[in-house]
Amino acid sequence: MFAPDSVAVIGATNIPGTWGFGIMRHLLDSVNRNIYPVNPTVSEVLGIATYDSVLDIPSPIDLAVIVVPAPQVPIVLQECVQKGVRTAVIISAGFAETGEQGCELENELVRIARQGGIRFIGPNCMGHADTSSHLCTLAWSEGITAGPVGIISQSGNYGGQMMRAGMALGIGFSKFISTGNEADLHLEDYLEYLAQDQNTSVITAYIEGLREGRRFFQLAKRTTTRKPVIVVKAGVTKESSRAVRSHSGALAGSDAVYNAAFRQAGVIRVQDDDEICDVLKALLNQPLPKNNRIGILTIGGGLGVVAAQDCEQEGLRVAPLSPSTMEKLNAYLPSRWSHGNPVDTAGLIAANRRPFFSSLLALIEDENIDAVLLLVPMIFNSERLSVFQSIKKKEAVAFLEIQKENFVMVKERAKECSKPMFVVSSVIDEEASSFLFREGIPAYHNPRCAARVLRHLAWYNHYLDSAK
Amino acid sequence: MFAPDSVAVIGATNIPGTWGFGIMRHLLDSVNRNIYPVNPTVSEVLGIATYDSVLDIPSPIDLAVIVVPAPQVPIVLQECVQKGVRTAVIISAGFAETGEQGCELENELVRIARQGGIRFIGPNCMGHADTSSHLCTLAWSEGITAGPVGIISQSGNYGGQMMRAGMALGIGFSKFISTGNEADLHLEDYLEYLAQDQNTSVITAYIEGLREGRRFFQLAKRTTTRKPVIVVKAGVTKESSRAVRSHSGALAGSDAVYNAAFRQAGVIRVQDDDEICDVLKALLNQPLPKNNRIGILTIGGGLGVVAAQDCEQEGLRVAPLSPSTMEKLNAYLPSRWSHGNPVDTAGLIAANRRPFFSSLLALIEDENIDAVLLLVPMIFNSERLSVFQSIKKKEAVAFLEIQKENFVMVKERAKECSKPMFVVSSVIDEEASSFLFREGIPAYHNPRCAARVLRHLAWYNHYLDSAK
Repeated sequence: MFAPDSVAVIGATNIPGTWGFGIMRHLLDSVNRNIYPVNPTVSEVLGIATYDSVLDIPSPIDLAVIVVPAPQVPIVLQECVQKGVRTAVIISAGFAETGEQGCELENELVRIARQGGIRFIGPNCMGHADTSSHLCTLAWSEGITAGPVGIISQSGNYGGQMMRAGMALGIGFSKFISTGNEADLHLEDYLEYLAQDQNTSVITAYIEGLREGRRFFQLAKRTTTRKPVIVVKAGVTKESSRAVRSHSGALAGSDAVYNAAFRQAGVIRVQDDDEICDVLKALLNQPLPKNNRIGILTIGGGLGVVAAQDCEQEGLRVAPLSPSTMEKLNAYLPSRWSHGNPVDTAGLIAANRRPFFSSLLALIEDENIDAVLLLVPMIFNSERLSVFQSIKKKEAVAFLEIQKENFVMVKERAKECSKPMFVVSSVIDEEASSFLFREGIPAYHNPRCAARVLRHLAWYNHYLDSAK
Repeated sequence: MFAPDSVAVIGATNIPGTWGFGIMRHLLDSVNRNIYPVNPTVSEVLGIATYDSVLDIPSPIDLAVIVVPAPQVPIVLQECVQKGVRTAVIISAGFAETGEQGCELENELVRIARQGGIRFIGPNCMGHADTSSHLCTLAWSEGITAGPVGIISQSGNYGGQMMRAGMALGIGFSKFISTGNEADLHLEDYLEYLAQDQNTSVITAYIEGLREGRRFFQLAKRTTTRKPVIVVKAGVTKESSRAVRSHSGALAGSDAVYNAAFRQAGVIRVQDDDEICDVLKALLNQPLPKNNRIGILTIGGGLGVVAAQDCEQEGLRVAPLSPSTMEKLNAYLPSRWSHGNPVDTAGLIAANRRPFFSSLLALIEDENIDAVLLLVPMIFNSERLSVFQSIKKKEAVAFLEIQKENFVMVKERAKECSKPMFVVSSVIDEEASSFLFREGIPAYHNPRCAARVLRHLAWYNHYLDSAK
């Protein structure tokens, strides 16, 4: 299913902008794979001769992508059985999600598949992808960056959006599955598969309702001690749970029950796709915090006040500094510094490199601190910086060079200390952003997002400790 | 103070990266204004001859910017009095925020000012700015875009960050005041001033603690019926309120009391600077929603489910559609559409222009709906779109042209109906972003942010109705 040598696209078309065309086009990007368009009404699709039926294809077929109108799907699936095809993706919609008649049609698919020994994704789904085998059955895609994150989504659009948002942040993906109506294969099957998949080290999921809740939680419990599992569970409120029924036909279920089960199984539950990306940025690059005591360094008091508030409201602790850290900071910083956590350098900025970065190191090394938030405007474009700091362009360039060295130095030290360090600023220019990405330092637009991520990671670390 | 003809910079220096240099440089960008550097230890700053004392300047001085070390400020301020200067900005830190001794020094400043008839901003502040008079006493700045938003901030850094974040979104500013320790002029004075200022139509403030709470709320109550007032009030939690004391010396006070007072005075309270910008994007371009009934249009069920959940969790209603809208949508959309709100077009995308945009219009015109969220990936780069939708570049260009026309058409209709329309997508490319900005259609990265803004605006509209 994920690494087929040969694929038949049943319902392939030549009309740009349609599913049958988009799927063909993305499939053709894959390497070392035979693609066979099936469509009795046209002679070729994208220059490849079509077959009237899957039965006419002379070679064996590993995967069938089915994108014909719903009433024709049973016939087509039966032909796949006859052909000896073992796996299929049924993109076509118009099944259980539309009511009773659709339900019957869907049940027929399941009967055909069970009798014929076919397993299938969907129906009413958006396809699947595997970056290691270069397979993509999505109709709408701009290509997928390879990486360690797997996506299982009960909404193709939501999963697709999550993937595109992640890619914009430099996050790569291993496998993507739009589960659709889950008539045959369930979300739980994909979870079991990704748990074993060597190319996947973090599993993310968008869930509207679980068909095998008990199995999900047993699987999750076994998985999370090795691989983090991050989920968005939707349908919590009245109208959204109603929307779930009309969307995927699932029952959203009791949110409190889900919540308790997620916690017991070590599953990180987040609010939305943005929060998944926020967590991934840290999880893929930083150690887990040993506990929830946060150190904050800021060049401006107000930034520290708001960050402290966000941390506390997220259940983190803005911990008192150790006496030795206080001593160090008294030596490094102007006497009017805040004398506590958040460490407000009181106007001392990164331009005064030694005391600034020494203070940051002191905070990182403090035994009372588990993670550090650094609140500074990140202007790394030398043109902008020279205007901002009223210095010459040449000086700005030299300043930035040393600044970067200092950042790398503190990052290494934070790593040695096994403490995550995040940058938080609503001013992060493109140059700063790509530097931070290269160095694996997660950057957040506001302290609330950073605090939320730290809450998740501290909780997950605590879970792992207790699960030992 | 905000439109001086002549400014003395007492403590101007020639050393790039220092306050005394940065302030000089930004002041020199202003037009039709005489700038006099004062510094007895150097002969010129940025090519302008210095004076040993403000008393040596031959012409009258309207505004003194004071940036000498704290112990020298009283002497310098006394000289300003002698010179007949009427307004000052005291940048220097090391006063009440540092303890008892600093307090005494600060009291001395107030005595001198009261006796000498000087009013001043600060001390321990980052300066002020006025885009209509082209004045900027900030040391760290990249220039300020002119516009209708005034900022009063009890943290210079926070206010500066807010301004830079706003400018990155195309929001312009009228006046900026970093209030510092508020030894003389209080936040309440600036509020009174901006309420009268013709160039300011929205007032934003970062507040740690109010020195004249009762006056603030009386002023705010009079102001909000004409101009929205949006505030971040920090220091809510234990450690952040401690941080407030060491930062601005203010008392954070009871959050519940603040909250109730803000509500009674029609003040929109938000969590952070990002949320201020989110609200501004809508407030500056869109009508207020008449009520809290939200219509959601999505091309993908999951996106609608999460958006509905976010709306409900923010206290908005995902309202049932009127029968006539249901009828229209039944005609426009494939039969498997969601048959309710959120309107899931079930795979019908904007490429099918007429039914898609007709459905959007139907939702906008529905009498049961006060505001519309449109959830679509916004890929407006023709190169990207041609890949994404599997169409030719030429087709993508033509498609985008008509797409834009359709967007403008629905925007106009929404305006006629006095209903805000927001776009929500975590995929908004640069081309889409600048198009939406030009058309005044606010775009949000996730539905939670959009829902939060609608909650604020619906509440504000309700307040205005009840205050009539």
